[in-house]
Amino acid sequence: MPPRIDLNSDLGEGYGAWSMGDDAAMLALVSSANVACGFHAGDPRGILATLRLAAERGVAVGAHVSYPDRVGFGRRPMDVTTDELTADVIYQIGALQGLAAVAGTRVTYVKPHGALYNTIATDARQAGAVIAAVLAVDPALVLMGLAGAAVLAQATAAGLTTVAEAFADRAYGADGALLSRRLPGAVLHDPALIAARMLRLATEGVIEAVDGSPLHLSAQSICVHGDNPDAVAIAQRIRAQLLAHGVTIAAFTGPA
Amino acid sequence: MPPRIDLNSDLGEGYGAWSMGDDAAMLALVSSANVACGFHAGDPRGILATLRLAAERGVAVGAHVSYPDRVGFGRRPMDVTTDELTADVIYQIGALQGLAAVAGTRVTYVKPHGALYNTIATDARQAGAVIAAVLAVDPALVLMGLAGAAVLAQATAAGLTTVAEAFADRAYGADGALLSRRLPGAVLHDPALIAARMLRLATEGVIEAVDGSPLHLSAQSICVHGDNPDAVAIAQRIRAQLLAHGVTIAAFTGPA
Amino acid sequence: MPPRIDLNSDLGEGYGAWSMGDDAAMLALVSSANVACGFHAGDPRGILATLRLAAERGVAVGAHVSYPDRVGFGRRPMDVTTDELTADVIYQIGALQGLAAVAGTRVTYVKPHGALYNTIATDARQAGAVIAAVLAVDPALVLMGLAGAAVLAQATAAGLTTVAEAFADRAYGADGALLSRRLPGAVLHDPALIAARMLRLATEGVIEAVDGSPLHLSAQSICVHGDNPDAVAIAQRIRAQLLAHGVTIAAFTGPA
Amino acid sequence: MPPRIDLNSDLGEGYGAWSMGDDAAMLALVSSANVACGFHAGDPRGILATLRLAAERGVAVGAHVSYPDRVGFGRRPMDVTTDELTADVIYQIGALQGLAAVAGTRVTYVKPHGALYNTIATDARQAGAVIAAVLAVDPALVLMGLAGAAVLAQATAAGLTTVAEAFADRAYGADGALLSRRLPGAVLHDPALIAARMLRLATEGVIEAVDGSPLHLSAQSICVHGDNPDAVAIAQRIRAQLLAHGVTIAAFTGPA
Repeated sequence: MPPRIDLNSDLGEGYGAWSMGDDAAMLALVSSANVACGFHAGDPRGILATLRLAAERGVAVGAHVSYPDRVGFGRRPMDVTTDELTADVIYQIGALQGLAAVAGTRVTYVKPHGALYNTIATDARQAGAVIAAVLAVDPALVLMGLAGAAVLAQATAAGLTTVAEAFADRAYGADGALLSRRLPGAVLHDPALIAARMLRLATEGVIEAVDGSPLHLSAQSICVHGDNPDAVAIAQRIRAQLLAHGVTIAAFTGPA
Repeated sequence: MPPRIDLNSDLGEGYGAWSMGDDAAMLALVSSANVACGFHAGDPRGILATLRLAAERGVAVGAHVSYPDRVGFGRRPMDVTTDELTADVIYQIGALQGLAAVAGTRVTYVKPHGALYNTIATDARQAGAVIAAVLAVDPALVLMGLAGAAVLAQATAAGLTTVAEAFADRAYGADGALLSRRLPGAVLHDPALIAARMLRLATEGVIEAVDGSPLHLSAQSICVHGDNPDAVAIAQRIRAQLLAHGVTIAAFTGPA
Repeated sequence: MPPRIDLNSDLGEGYGAWSMGDDAAMLALVSSANVACGFHAGDPRGILATLRLAAERGVAVGAHVSYPDRVGFGRRPMDVTTDELTADVIYQIGALQGLAAVAGTRVTYVKPHGALYNTIATDARQAGAVIAAVLAVDPALVLMGLAGAAVLAQATAAGLTTVAEAFADRAYGADGALLSRRLPGAVLHDPALIAARMLRLATEGVIEAVDGSPLHLSAQSICVHGDNPDAVAIAQRIRAQLLAHGVTIAAFTGPA
Repeated sequence: MPPRIDLNSDLGEGYGAWSMGDDAAMLALVSSANVACGFHAGDPRGILATLRLAAERGVAVGAHVSYPDRVGFGRRPMDVTTDELTADVIYQIGALQGLAAVAGTRVTYVKPHGALYNTIATDARQAGAVIAAVLAVDPALVLMGLAGAAVLAQATAAGLTTVAEAFADRAYGADGALLSRRLPGAVLHDPALIAARMLRLATEGVIEAVDGSPLHLSAQSICVHGDNPDAVAIAQRIRAQLLAHGVTIAAFTGPA
């Protein structure tokens, strides 16, 4: 069976007059689009435009749910209550489902954004609030999370299907954790190196850790960024490298 | 066939720490709840709580969509573009649908709020934007509007089912228009008088205009307010009066 | 020298159509008003109305600065950066200064609100961000904080004048910390008991801890709540008790 | 006396993670900066950074006040009440004054933004609300408006100093009004043409109307845009052209 992996990217992250990234360029490269739901980014008209492009391209759509923190772009940890978080996630998925249906597509997975993503990787209470929301809306929705994070096991135990992702432009410690952004070398910039690493991940399930040791990582998706021209170039390189070596790039959820 | 009419009220209009009205009291009186969707009022947790109460009570749920103007409570006319308005309405309906399903109910109609309600009564462009949104989400959703307003005919022509409503506590001109709030006597306060007027409307289809002439008004629903203790008392009086005279109070959309 | 203490309360906490508390009632009772600045509560028109009442009553005005979290009423801890927090606090003080001058009064102190208040009590980084903001705007502004909290010493060392406050309706541990709201008995409700405790604090500098031991607390201000009828009644009782025993109630900052 | 004119541009219009325009590039070209106040754009940290650059460059600072409509970038007309508008403008000026003082500069003028700018050009009620706010904060603040607009006479009559501005990249009708953006040719793109027009305006007080007739326009300031690379190039060309012909470029308010 030939190797296969998903490429995902954060899209629909403009807001009113402000744009971010090049959604059209990225939708030609990725198989899954994490679409903003209005809490950290995205206004309804802009979200709808991105969803229409995703529908045209046959790219799968996920709800990129967030804390309600637009000025902080959802990057600031917030100690929200369980009830607040569950309701906030339901609201965001519902809003995106409404727009997606109008755009001729549908939401097939949920990927928490920014600080919420990082928090629930290890915070079982907030993770439970997100899992409860996804289950309540539709148990068939897939939850995407950090490969190796506790939230994935928690979600599986609760009855959700999960997908683990790796980050294309990040260095990993030998323990499988992402190297902190505060450390030198935490973010990779060389397209050739990044593409080679992702090819190895897709074909061998191995990524080289920062100490040189081989790290076995089970990831069904690769997160690529698209918020600057270099990022688009890196995504192009990864895609080309994977395809050149016979790796199928396809959404884990199947065709939209 | 015995007379039958719907009673509707604006609910779910708290926001975070701020409350408004007594949703529990009103849900014991009305047959349809216009539930805020977060743009003029309503936060996800509070909306969900109101929807759960509505589900328990068997009260029909409508999406009370608004301009994005929380500090102005959606009461300030805004000259939004057609695309913005259509997407904003889809987003709000979708969000409420998501929460409603989790609460064990569903959205069966749409009632624009405040300045949007008033604007689309006569502004065909904005009316068209709202109608397009409702049609795009689900043509089975009913649009509620002001009895006699042009938007209802426009919506019918576009293929939507509509419901016309009368306002319990407002005076009407002989031409069928609401008397401007700036004029004395525009808002009625006497529970007995209001209840008598609504009984006549429900049984004869007639309401007495401000000049004393009988105004024939085709209304399938009566809007009652619930944002202060007097309003709840008025709603109770209307309900009691209608029931005492054999009028059935029931949602126009049938059971939820 | 007769005993003297300040009474402060959180005011201006409505938002658009939503009201909170009875500012007029409280402004007849307190000597200092912590006025919302728009980040957790307060819209410009409502803030201005409260400031005009404060000016009429001769009540001192403080900037009740907050995290930017309106839906959470500023009660949710947020891990903001130092630069963000400093700029947010400057912005809020400046906005309130502008409105206060128009209302015929001026801002004489700063009291962080909710989660920010609690966080900086012990988090030196965020405390430093707030202190830097106050110093940058005007070193003559007084910083109000929890009696005994580390932030007060930090502010003093940085060159600010500080005022320590006690909470009228809260129980204290023998160590001087507020009893956690999650514990039974943490919030006091008996007006007579509360007034007696505050009288002892004002005259002896002692408050009885939850274990019965006398706690020496140096507080120049007492925080009274005003967001419900009971709270207003408690504030009236405290004020009456203090005045009956010769305690002067006056703003620590002197006349506005 | 050599000709002299002010160049102004809208700056500080990023929001959180979203950027807009190149403030550093524009601050090397203009003499006055209309700085966003947080209602249509601008977060406190970003505004402060722009103010610091303006202070370094000796560029005068104006408060670019707006309707509260971030998602619409303040470009959508809103029918706000007089009290709301006055308080909103005071709040914004105060917030900017607070940040400006910390940045080592001060606010010397007020320029309403977007839909508010256009509305008050002809709507005397909303114009009066803005004028009242500026007078209440500081009668020495200058109000900037569209050359020829009624608001300038209204402000002068109320006791404010005003400055009239022309738009570098817009075509004018023979009546002195801006050609509607919906008409072809309303927006100019040729840097050489634009620069030649502005030179004539600065030296002769004349701009060629769309019908070829000379339009006498009394403008003490020229608005140049900076939100895209072409706009910066146009601003550079205007500046170079003016300087090459002996026109002094200087803020109307004098040194900051």
